[in-house]
Amino acid sequence: MAAISFFGDLLQTISERGRDLIGLGRGDLGARASAQELLKLCEDLISRRGEASGVALARLILDRYASLARPERADFLRMVATEFAADHEAVDEAIAAYRAAPSRAALGVLHDAAEPRSQELIRRLNLARDGTLALVRMREDLFGLRRALRDEEADPDVIDAADSLDSDFEHLFASWFNRGFLVLRPIDWTTPAHILEKIIRYEAVHAIADWDDLRRRIAPQDRRCFAFFHPALVDEPLIFVEVALTAGIAPAIAPILAHEREPLPAREATTAIFYSISNCQKGLAGVTFGNFLIKQVVEDLAREIPSLKTFVTLSPVPGFAAWLDRERRADAPQGLTREDVEALRLIDEPDWHADKAKAEIVRKAMIPAAAAYFLRAKNERGKPLDPVARFHLGNGARLERLNFLGDVSRKGLAQSRGLMVNYLYDLSAIEKNHETFANLGTVAASSAVSRELRNNLPPARAVALADA
Amino acid sequence: MAAISFFGDLLQTISERGRDLIGLGRGDLGARASAQELLKLCEDLISRRGEASGVALARLILDRYASLARPERADFLRMVATEFAADHEAVDEAIAAYRAAPSRAALGVLHDAAEPRSQELIRRLNLARDGTLALVRMREDLFGLRRALRDEEADPDVIDAADSLDSDFEHLFASWFNRGFLVLRPIDWTTPAHILEKIIRYEAVHAIADWDDLRRRIAPQDRRCFAFFHPALVDEPLIFVEVALTAGIAPAIAPILAHEREPLPAREATTAIFYSISNCQKGLAGVTFGNFLIKQVVEDLAREIPSLKTFVTLSPVPGFAAWLDRERRADAPQGLTREDVEALRLIDEPDWHADKAKAEIVRKAMIPAAAAYFLRAKNERGKPLDPVARFHLGNGARLERLNFLGDVSRKGLAQSRGLMVNYLYDLSAIEKNHETFANLGTVAASSAVSRELRNNLPPARAVALADA
Amino acid sequence: MAAISFFGDLLQTISERGRDLIGLGRGDLGARASAQELLKLCEDLISRRGEASGVALARLILDRYASLARPERADFLRMVATEFAADHEAVDEAIAAYRAAPSRAALGVLHDAAEPRSQELIRRLNLARDGTLALVRMREDLFGLRRALRDEEADPDVIDAADSLDSDFEHLFASWFNRGFLVLRPIDWTTPAHILEKIIRYEAVHAIADWDDLRRRIAPQDRRCFAFFHPALVDEPLIFVEVALTAGIAPAIAPILAHEREPLPAREATTAIFYSISNCQKGLAGVTFGNFLIKQVVEDLAREIPSLKTFVTLSPVPGFAAWLDRERRADAPQGLTREDVEALRLIDEPDWHADKAKAEIVRKAMIPAAAAYFLRAKNERGKPLDPVARFHLGNGARLERLNFLGDVSRKGLAQSRGLMVNYLYDLSAIEKNHETFANLGTVAASSAVSRELRNNLPPARAVALADA
Amino acid sequence: MAAISFFGDLLQTISERGRDLIGLGRGDLGARASAQELLKLCEDLISRRGEASGVALARLILDRYASLARPERADFLRMVATEFAADHEAVDEAIAAYRAAPSRAALGVLHDAAEPRSQELIRRLNLARDGTLALVRMREDLFGLRRALRDEEADPDVIDAADSLDSDFEHLFASWFNRGFLVLRPIDWTTPAHILEKIIRYEAVHAIADWDDLRRRIAPQDRRCFAFFHPALVDEPLIFVEVALTAGIAPAIAPILAHEREPLPAREATTAIFYSISNCQKGLAGVTFGNFLIKQVVEDLAREIPSLKTFVTLSPVPGFAAWLDRERRADAPQGLTREDVEALRLIDEPDWHADKAKAEIVRKAMIPAAAAYFLRAKNERGKPLDPVARFHLGNGARLERLNFLGDVSRKGLAQSRGLMVNYLYDLSAIEKNHETFANLGTVAASSAVSRELRNNLPPARAVALADA
Repeated sequence: MAAISFFGDLLQTISERGRDLIGLGRGDLGARASAQELLKLCEDLISRRGEASGVALARLILDRYASLARPERADFLRMVATEFAADHEAVDEAIAAYRAAPSRAALGVLHDAAEPRSQELIRRLNLARDGTLALVRMREDLFGLRRALRDEEADPDVIDAADSLDSDFEHLFASWFNRGFLVLRPIDWTTPAHILEKIIRYEAVHAIADWDDLRRRIAPQDRRCFAFFHPALVDEPLIFVEVALTAGIAPAIAPILAHEREPLPAREATTAIFYSISNCQKGLAGVTFGNFLIKQVVEDLAREIPSLKTFVTLSPVPGFAAWLDRERRADAPQGLTREDVEALRLIDEPDWHADKAKAEIVRKAMIPAAAAYFLRAKNERGKPLDPVARFHLGNGARLERLNFLGDVSRKGLAQSRGLMVNYLYDLSAIEKNHETFANLGTVAASSAVSRELRNNLPPARAVALADA
Repeated sequence: MAAISFFGDLLQTISERGRDLIGLGRGDLGARASAQELLKLCEDLISRRGEASGVALARLILDRYASLARPERADFLRMVATEFAADHEAVDEAIAAYRAAPSRAALGVLHDAAEPRSQELIRRLNLARDGTLALVRMREDLFGLRRALRDEEADPDVIDAADSLDSDFEHLFASWFNRGFLVLRPIDWTTPAHILEKIIRYEAVHAIADWDDLRRRIAPQDRRCFAFFHPALVDEPLIFVEVALTAGIAPAIAPILAHEREPLPAREATTAIFYSISNCQKGLAGVTFGNFLIKQVVEDLAREIPSLKTFVTLSPVPGFAAWLDRERRADAPQGLTREDVEALRLIDEPDWHADKAKAEIVRKAMIPAAAAYFLRAKNERGKPLDPVARFHLGNGARLERLNFLGDVSRKGLAQSRGLMVNYLYDLSAIEKNHETFANLGTVAASSAVSRELRNNLPPARAVALADA
Repeated sequence: MAAISFFGDLLQTISERGRDLIGLGRGDLGARASAQELLKLCEDLISRRGEASGVALARLILDRYASLARPERADFLRMVATEFAADHEAVDEAIAAYRAAPSRAALGVLHDAAEPRSQELIRRLNLARDGTLALVRMREDLFGLRRALRDEEADPDVIDAADSLDSDFEHLFASWFNRGFLVLRPIDWTTPAHILEKIIRYEAVHAIADWDDLRRRIAPQDRRCFAFFHPALVDEPLIFVEVALTAGIAPAIAPILAHEREPLPAREATTAIFYSISNCQKGLAGVTFGNFLIKQVVEDLAREIPSLKTFVTLSPVPGFAAWLDRERRADAPQGLTREDVEALRLIDEPDWHADKAKAEIVRKAMIPAAAAYFLRAKNERGKPLDPVARFHLGNGARLERLNFLGDVSRKGLAQSRGLMVNYLYDLSAIEKNHETFANLGTVAASSAVSRELRNNLPPARAVALADA
Repeated sequence: MAAISFFGDLLQTISERGRDLIGLGRGDLGARASAQELLKLCEDLISRRGEASGVALARLILDRYASLARPERADFLRMVATEFAADHEAVDEAIAAYRAAPSRAALGVLHDAAEPRSQELIRRLNLARDGTLALVRMREDLFGLRRALRDEEADPDVIDAADSLDSDFEHLFASWFNRGFLVLRPIDWTTPAHILEKIIRYEAVHAIADWDDLRRRIAPQDRRCFAFFHPALVDEPLIFVEVALTAGIAPAIAPILAHEREPLPAREATTAIFYSISNCQKGLAGVTFGNFLIKQVVEDLAREIPSLKTFVTLSPVPGFAAWLDRERRADAPQGLTREDVEALRLIDEPDWHADKAKAEIVRKAMIPAAAAYFLRAKNERGKPLDPVARFHLGNGARLERLNFLGDVSRKGLAQSRGLMVNYLYDLSAIEKNHETFANLGTVAASSAVSRELRNNLPPARAVALADA
């Protein structure tokens, strides 16, 4: 720890040298650099010859950015977006040169000229110690700016510029956070507390109430949790998945999260249930992790516990309630018969799910409706409406089971009328499923699910809906 | 270790699935895929929708590439270079669209269109486990191909294509191996043997004879060694520096490498001598490491050993002998007087350096010549002729001392007539030195060095010489 | 984790082999071995020639012991205590031989003969994997047995035997847990949760309410915690100390444990306050850890934070309230004047400490009384009555300050009338203080404390009191 | 590393304080403390009340001991041996008290009184940092003293005292280095160099020539090495074993150590050959490690490589050549027929083993002789003459094969006429083999070995020979 505080000193010294160089005194920092001043430093940073000399300056810019108030940050990002575009004159020249003599070299010049200067800026800021994390956080701020610009119906060119800046971040993050650099770590009760604290905070599917709740999810021998980390974001998980080891495919979430449970000896488990998967870093939106994580965990668990034969999720169906409501109101529903619509009136009654007789009536209508929701209801790109379905089917999983009343929590009933589903990860079928889904939009489904689809429905039609 | 061999099994299984999918049997692999077949797999890889599905395919391509014989590899790389260029039609369309309506989005499309497809191919190959190392090795092969193409005076377009492919590698490696992802590790006698074995192999300045020689360089308390590693190249050092802790600035290499030495207690050292710095991965040529390494080591040593006040190199002068020969033959030498030329005739005599009287005569001519070599002789870009000087001066170091007969080994006499120099790293002056060197070409030198420069030389002239 | 479960298998197999050998089937274990049977296995274990062959048998005995119900365990321990005594006949023979020819060898034979066989039994049980922890737990059971024997006024010889068995444990534990084998580890917010969970459980001075409370004690930069571990008890802390870094000697505990606090930058701290020290393993009672721990932490903190100049405890005074009550009731009090007794009547009133005027009156009497308690009140061995005082003074610390109303929690008022004290650890004085305390019983005290002692008290008298 | 040198400072300071306390200045240390002075410090150390206060003093004693010249060390050890005996008066009193009232407590007092004071001294010296290693080295010095005393035919009482002091060391080391505290570590090419350097140095069976030779033994996938470590001797291996994984039981050592070899894929191995096992610490002689090591390695390898079915040694037969010579000269040999004696004359010829015809004649006589050597020739305790045989058979292994010309190195021919043998470790038979060997002296041997025994030999007779 002495080392760390010394190191703090050292960095301070270097930053001060950096400041002196640029002609900014100490007091100035106390008074907070304006966004405008920061922009000047950024210009300085990308105009430097050697990248190496920019380390101190990059750190200074990131430190100052962190010290700005929210509105000033937004100002700064907006200016970066609009002013660090590509140089149009240079582009025109490069086009002319390329047209005159369309060589590989000329094309290279054109490619470079067409690159927004903001991309090089982001690259150079990443030279600073802990620069990557600071940039991830900066992109989170950018999300806020983009929302605000849309909300206030700002100049389309500014909106466009902000979107373009976001693409720069996404492009570079995809390169820096590529699969080869990710490290998988098991998360369990021997994991350091400051990591576990983040697991509690980032869990997005079934909230973790407190440390006791966390302990129940990671300490028993029939529970597992795995997270991806990146070497440049030392103590920050990127994504994690929670797994229950069971003796069969679980149809409901409550027994998995139950307080009092007799754990199953791991070696007796036959099935791994992936019941929660959460992305941790909003600033890394658009960078693919989940697919790699699930496949890696399937491989690792299969190796660790040879008795495991089945790998499935237990997933929410976040778009189902909204779709079902539209169907019930529709003149010509795509997935419901007239009788179904009738039966489903019961779900408007409070606590319908607790009444066995009512529930049975609903079940008979809802399960075929769910089959239609997954197999027939498509968005304008020909993919299923449900975002979770798109994720798992896109990974090459198969829709395995429809679980009526799988989640009767308030959230579960509101979002999906209690419905949960299992997606099956069969390593030997993943590639084929993925290909047919990606190319033809074909949904891989078990015969049990397919059988539920009613025969007497009208032909399927793509529904124009915004992607979730 | 059981885990590893199991894992090998698993990968094999997956690869086999991958192969089945693509319709290639086992025997086929045994018969070695031709470069042509491999190219088809590459086309398949970059045409896939989701990057995630390409992991197995990327691994397969890299495995097959590794199994190719050298000529087939060259074939493959040449085909990638020529056939994975940008799509010119798409470029033309993008140019037209951009001209019609020069929006940010249109420019983005143009930027994407102008990017060689080979760049995306390299990115996707990097998805494979251990893909990064395989790509670094592939670029080494590419160096060979480029040399061969030039040697055989191949079609300029092919040479151009190969150079362009190399730029793709360099661009992506610069992004993946940026400073923020590098990890500094001390190398000492407690370092694992398989790492030390590579230190022995990669040492490029003063060769390490055997394990005993290595031990003398890293085990004593007045010796240090540090290397950069990257998380994706687990056991491969990228660059390392060897340091001697001394009681003053060392003018010669022999005492540092001596077999019998009484080590100095580390806490009594005042000076750290960086006497050898070696890049380890040819495939990462062009990616900056040395600058960051030296500065980091200066910081770490200053923290560890507070008595250290001076940080200098003890460096070879690889271009000096050749320059001196040219000067001596020149009609109008830039750095020698007529008397100097006369005096320097002695160095054509064998073992001149071992004769005190001769050596003294040579010294009086050679030291001023060396001052001229560093301070006046410039290449066409206005930078010093000496590549090592350009490196350290570009880092912001100062030329501190000229050491006559600092290296009397055969190599030292041949390359630099025995001359060695010290470059001083003074953290408080680094930024300023760097800026003035980068912008004005000014060589930072101690007054001791400057004083050696003769007054009666003709005006300096840039010498057109290929950069080293 | 696969490894672990496999390993479980393996151990089971070995144990089964062990069982087969000894002629005990599986069913038998299910039906629980009686204490009598276990004793037979113990006889078998210590009668073996080579210690090596006993590993499986030792494991079997410890497993069976763990499966016994509490009364059976007590039976077993009582039998071990009484039946694994030294062999009196052998002792008599050895005495005779020694008297006849009092050689070193004869004395060695006598020494061996006089050793209880239970000592060898414990040594051999320690061969088993995780045997040490099992033996520590076994000694905890033995404490229960010894209490029960005393409570039921059992046969003195049996009580004697149980005490002797306890001495065997203590003797061996002192050897196995000697200072050289202990490992100091910082405990902070990056420590694995399963260790932190034990810190919460074992804290014995100021209870830790929950994980948030724990976080406040170990995460801020001005808080530290250190624990000793032993390699054979992997995840079990032996003892730990909590430290607050402050700008001066803290007189009260409440500000240290406060929920809302602005942490002090560690480098600004001048004082380290050891405010809680807890032994974790009851079964290791009698083995010295605290002294080593404090001295090591003082050394480590002094190294880490050079600004630290003062190392003090903030300690409870557990015997003070009881002593003060006796004094107040005494005909001839040793530490109170008549006026003091009068003033101290106020402490019988509820909430006296919250009333400034009352508190001030009490203070004037209580502080001199406290000085007398520490400096004059001695037990029959000539040492201070207070057990915490004996510990710190025995370590060589000095009584530095008396803090009136330092702990106004319910426990603090009940135990010590709110009094807390600081013991100062001055490395340069520790040895001398220790020696004079150990040899002469002299209490090292600051002049501030000494001055508080009233002049007009009667001569000091040793008070016969059981040691706490 | 800064930490370490600082720490050195600190320790020095503490030691200086320790010295001041004891009244010894610095210069004194420079002049080397005499053995006599050191003895006084030892008296001081064991007379202290609390063990805690002795840490600095213990360190001081060990440092001074290390600074003594060899003869002074011997003086010191002799004085400790003779003067730190038990107090005979106290023993007599304790005997009297025990006789008067033979209680458990009285026996405890007697036991304590009969313990040599040197044992407590060793325990207290072990309090010092790195004390354990210093004590192990001290015992090595003691071996030298004991040899010297015997060589010079010293006073038997002094010899006796030195032997007794050695028993104290052994007793305490056996307790401190018990199985539960040992840590098994694989040794391979990723092991730190300073550990590997010790493996090279400590190899005692088949010498390791250099680092390349070491690499051949630990780096290939069909080679393994494992060592035991103890937490208090951080970087010092205690014992290690070298293992070759093969496709069958190896009859000779040369192919295993060959320079050019095609390694076997680990997963194809069926047999693990333990071809070298070396104790590293002379000072730990008499403490059992080898048995535990082999069994643990058998377990670990069986788990790691399921294809392994057979675990055997390839062992030298160090006593064979000497026994065979005696037999050949004997009037009535126990293991040779007259024809055997005749045939064995050939082994007196140089290079007999390289002549196929001669070798075949020798083989027919030598193999039955070897069978007799192992199965019939016994020492006065009824155990085999061969020390390696006693070790492995005592561990419960079985004599599996006799390998004629298994080791034709100079050492192999001299020591055992080229003979090597395999001992088989079959976990399911180990306990039974051990028991029958320990209790009845029965040698477990394969039928292949037993069959070699000639029928027409005279009855077996115990041969009185010193144990090796």
